[in-house]
Amino acid sequence: MAKRVTGPEIEKLIQLLAKVPGLGPRSARRAALHLIKKKEQLLGPLSHAMGEAYDKVKICSRCGNVDTVDPCSVCTDERRDQSVLIVVEDVSDLWALERAGAMNAAYHVLGGTLSPLDGIGPDDLNIRGLIDRVNEGNIREVIIAVNATVEGQTTAHYITDQLSGIDVKITRLAHGVPVGGELDYLDEGTLTAALRARTAI
Amino acid sequence: MAKRVTGPEIEKLIQLLAKVPGLGPRSARRAALHLIKKKEQLLGPLSHAMGEAYDKVKICSRCGNVDTVDPCSVCTDERRDQSVLIVVEDVSDLWALERAGAMNAAYHVLGGTLSPLDGIGPDDLNIRGLIDRVNEGNIREVIIAVNATVEGQTTAHYITDQLSGIDVKITRLAHGVPVGGELDYLDEGTLTAALRARTAI
Repeated sequence: MAKRVTGPEIEKLIQLLAKVPGLGPRSARRAALHLIKKKEQLLGPLSHAMGEAYDKVKICSRCGNVDTVDPCSVCTDERRDQSVLIVVEDVSDLWALERAGAMNAAYHVLGGTLSPLDGIGPDDLNIRGLIDRVNEGNIREVIIAVNATVEGQTTAHYITDQLSGIDVKITRLAHGVPVGGELDYLDEGTLTAALRARTAI
Repeated sequence: MAKRVTGPEIEKLIQLLAKVPGLGPRSARRAALHLIKKKEQLLGPLSHAMGEAYDKVKICSRCGNVDTVDPCSVCTDERRDQSVLIVVEDVSDLWALERAGAMNAAYHVLGGTLSPLDGIGPDDLNIRGLIDRVNEGNIREVIIAVNATVEGQTTAHYITDQLSGIDVKITRLAHGVPVGGELDYLDEGTLTAALRARTAI
């Protein structure tokens, strides 16, 4: 703003809110005003929740999940089949798969994908930890659930390679038509994969 | 989430972030993960900025602007022409007009518009304060800069009515084609207004 129309603390709040993914400079101002109007119901509780998260958040040293305990609630959940590891790129993928609720397994978060162009090599990802976990011998299946992108698939190949000497079943997510998807909007690669992996009705 | 995959503090943070305008349940999760990953650069500073805003934010008792001082920096700015009052619905409108930077005037924030259906009458808005300010005698022009909606125009009429006995110039924003706007996409009302208020080249 050209001239000062509000306090520096509020300007600072707007600046920081603009860095939150999903918010830009304009929506950060809207968000800040909304927070200020809902001071007791929202600004106070959110400020407190952020402080709590800041103090208590931990990255699970075993699987890389985000939690307030280490090892995380997924790793210590005895109702899960801890002999099946779902390997994901990011914590958000772990949460997405859990929302689907299809498996009752353990996870391993890589923290990204191999990307030589961005200078991200195997040592920048949590791949060593995965091999160690599999080497411990209690894992019977590793499901590689990385994104179907070039980087994701490169990472999948690398991991498969690294695990090749160990006696463990390695699987990957199926490719095909997304549920609810329209064929006309899908790319040739997806359609080819869906045709090849067709199943009997 | 069906089963617990993260700590209750983090769930709480996601729940509260989802109430911020511009974020929904899904983007709140993304935002929370981003904040946690950028713990030192973003989560900590944002938590602190929210605490500061919570402690220090004030609504200006004179004009209704949001600031950390009362009266606000706009009301006490001696470089502004304090004899011209721009009447707006919301603080966000004040900020938007200041970004345009076209006027160097004072403001008056109504805090909404008259809306009988929602039970919002004159006493729910800061109209009494406006009349008092004009009655003090130091105001020479009141620019009614409410939204061009039915509620906005109703409110404008009501204010004009209330100020009719006082010796003050009352103006409103011009209607017309938005700068950069295409005629084909504009409604009939706007086009009619733009034609009627046509100016010589």
